[in-house]
Amino acid sequence: MRAALEAARAAAESGEVPVGAVVMRGEEVVAAAANAPRTLHDPTAHAEMLAIRAAAAKLGRDRLEDCDLWVTLEPCAMCAGAIAHARIARVYYGAADPKGGAVEHGPRFFSQPTCHHRPEVYGGIGEGEAGALLRDFFAARR
Amino acid sequence: MRAALEAARAAAESGEVPVGAVVMRGEEVVAAAANAPRTLHDPTAHAEMLAIRAAAAKLGRDRLEDCDLWVTLEPCAMCAGAIAHARIARVYYGAADPKGGAVEHGPRFFSQPTCHHRPEVYGGIGEGEAGALLRDFFAARR
Repeated sequence: MRAALEAARAAAESGEVPVGAVVMRGEEVVAAAANAPRTLHDPTAHAEMLAIRAAAAKLGRDRLEDCDLWVTLEPCAMCAGAIAHARIARVYYGAADPKGGAVEHGPRFFSQPTCHHRPEVYGGIGEGEAGALLRDFFAARR
Repeated sequence: MRAALEAARAAAESGEVPVGAVVMRGEEVVAAAANAPRTLHDPTAHAEMLAIRAAAAKLGRDRLEDCDLWVTLEPCAMCAGAIAHARIARVYYGAADPKGGAVEHGPRFFSQPTCHHRPEVYGGIGEGEAGALLRDFFAARR
């Protein structure tokens, strides 16, 4: 989670909502990414999406069943869908996101019968720091 | 929808599940794409995602509020999330997808309170041909 928080800080420095994600295979960091939709002109460029895409490209396959995802914020519906498509084994996330989260809020995607793969999910990992980064970012913009 | 069906046929020829998508701005085709997760080693490479990303890159921004999306199959949760993030104005889709769809099935994402943008949605456009492409594809693989 430390590497994901570092990526989140890098996002904030670029003026992006501070969220970071890392794909791990065992102890190995396969890919890390910072949230970057504005910078990249890509509405799909959430940290999770970029990390999953980079990991799949690096491993040369479209399924990551031997990988785990660490992310500083509860994934949204888009990212939860991508996690299921990628067959990620475990998801560890930081702060809960009552406004846009899709794991423990809203669609609760992994509990839907139309979700074809349910990772193990662990929330609240490093949520203090992850949440503080987000609060500071939005406070500075007000 | 004709261009989206053409992209779906191209996907089938590459051995991918035949789904195609087109982003339009008024009468102008901004981007068209075929489903390609296996070919691209990218679990997020659904037709809708590729078309939205290409359109955003072409227009140099991360919001497509003046654009519509045409897609041959009901979008999944990942793609519905991306459609909302991109602020797509209208979604026209072909065949319904009871197994993986997230518009009229499963999470019904656009009706969730955590969905920040609800496009106008029109289903069943060209569904006969879109559904036949999918049935033929899966029948040939059995």
